[in-house]
Amino acid sequence: MQKLEKLYEGKAKKMYATDDPDVLWVEYMNQATAGNGAKKAQIAGKGNLNNHITSVIFELLKARGIDSHFIKRLSDTEQLVRKMTMYPLEIIMRNTAAGSFAKRYGVKEGTPLKKPILEFCLKSDDLGDPFINDDGIVALGLASEDELAEISRQARAVNEALKDIFSKIDVQLVDFKIEEGKTSDGTILLADEITPDTCRLWDLKDHSGKIEHLDKDLFRRDLGNIIPAYEEIYSRLKQLADSEGVKDAE
Amino acid sequence: MQKLEKLYEGKAKKMYATDDPDVLWVEYMNQATAGNGAKKAQIAGKGNLNNHITSVIFELLKARGIDSHFIKRLSDTEQLVRKMTMYPLEIIMRNTAAGSFAKRYGVKEGTPLKKPILEFCLKSDDLGDPFINDDGIVALGLASEDELAEISRQARAVNEALKDIFSKIDVQLVDFKIEEGKTSDGTILLADEITPDTCRLWDLKDHSGKIEHLDKDLFRRDLGNIIPAYEEIYSRLKQLADSEGVKDAE
Repeated sequence: MQKLEKLYEGKAKKMYATDDPDVLWVEYMNQATAGNGAKKAQIAGKGNLNNHITSVIFELLKARGIDSHFIKRLSDTEQLVRKMTMYPLEIIMRNTAAGSFAKRYGVKEGTPLKKPILEFCLKSDDLGDPFINDDGIVALGLASEDELAEISRQARAVNEALKDIFSKIDVQLVDFKIEEGKTSDGTILLADEITPDTCRLWDLKDHSGKIEHLDKDLFRRDLGNIIPAYEEIYSRLKQLADSEGVKDAE
Repeated sequence: MQKLEKLYEGKAKKMYATDDPDVLWVEYMNQATAGNGAKKAQIAGKGNLNNHITSVIFELLKARGIDSHFIKRLSDTEQLVRKMTMYPLEIIMRNTAAGSFAKRYGVKEGTPLKKPILEFCLKSDDLGDPFINDDGIVALGLASEDELAEISRQARAVNEALKDIFSKIDVQLVDFKIEEGKTSDGTILLADEITPDTCRLWDLKDHSGKIEHLDKDLFRRDLGNIIPAYEEIYSRLKQLADSEGVKDAE
């Protein structure tokens, strides 16, 4: 597999073409951003950790019957993924009130929700990624009714699988964001990344009632260095993968 | 029927108890507000017109098989309605992109939508009536799954009936807001009001390509006096009601 021209540079990843038109080469960067890029920093080791974490999560999901764009990890900071036409949607699943949800509806952070909440935001830096509902997605032509039903089904299935994974490593899956896309043969698949950048993860190990953040809120809210938390998440996931016989090797 | 103590004073209406525990006495006020009360004015004649307009619209809807809380108009500014336990929701139906929708998604005002869009906002002045989706409504316990399905069904049926009514009087129904509640016997019904305060209505009579607003956008956007526009809407609705043999009398 040959790495060819750069196709895209986002906030946390660079994407390159390869000699296979259906495969992309992804490089995880050390950049951390928050507030739609308003806050930005270089954090040594972050790209390496997120590449390892998302790779092992995609493997753990696969073992639970959930496919994704992930093909394989190439190095500490690189992986191969299937090329997708992405839906311009941030797909958010919430199990516990936190972050923008808690603020928007005046609900105390940490309040359990009666059912998991699926939310969509239109991906647009210019518009500030506005919240959008199912009717809006279809009416604006962002996905068809059928595509949206499949995206929603997958998002809820990913939530159930991730809840299982994180509960096994004593972590509360508060909420997370995924993205979905369509392959050249029309298959709708989970894409992008699943890391502590895109999940809210609270440690369930005893911290005397205080929430111990193991995610990007440490950076967003200036609560401390993210690296030890990301290392902790990776180390627990790796142990789970080993115990399940799920491979996580280059 | 006896008018008893005042139960509630909103931005545009006062509600009084009556000697029948299932009936409320509503008084339409002349107050106009916009931007969650940031802009406010007294406009002589507005209460009278909105009371007449919403009364004739509820009668026209009834003739189309859509029930509401409306019992009868009592005077120029008063009507009797069924007492309801209200859902804390603003229920918005959109046929054409305008207002907050156009701004939120960067869509030109006037763009037709591929399908009518149903949106909900949590009614809360403190929180600025935030947008909420179906999962959020159920998860926060604002309505049950079944109640929400019935509210949504009714909102779409009201939209179809209102589109029919307004097209017959050469008015484009761009969008509107309704509210729903539950009677003491558990019936879910359309409530509140349907007036140019709560609908975006554009004149379809030729204005050489310029949008002629027949609604509260005249006030919101400082485009002119609302009274002639509200009079025009009432006069056309009254003519339609007469032609259909629908009564609109005290």
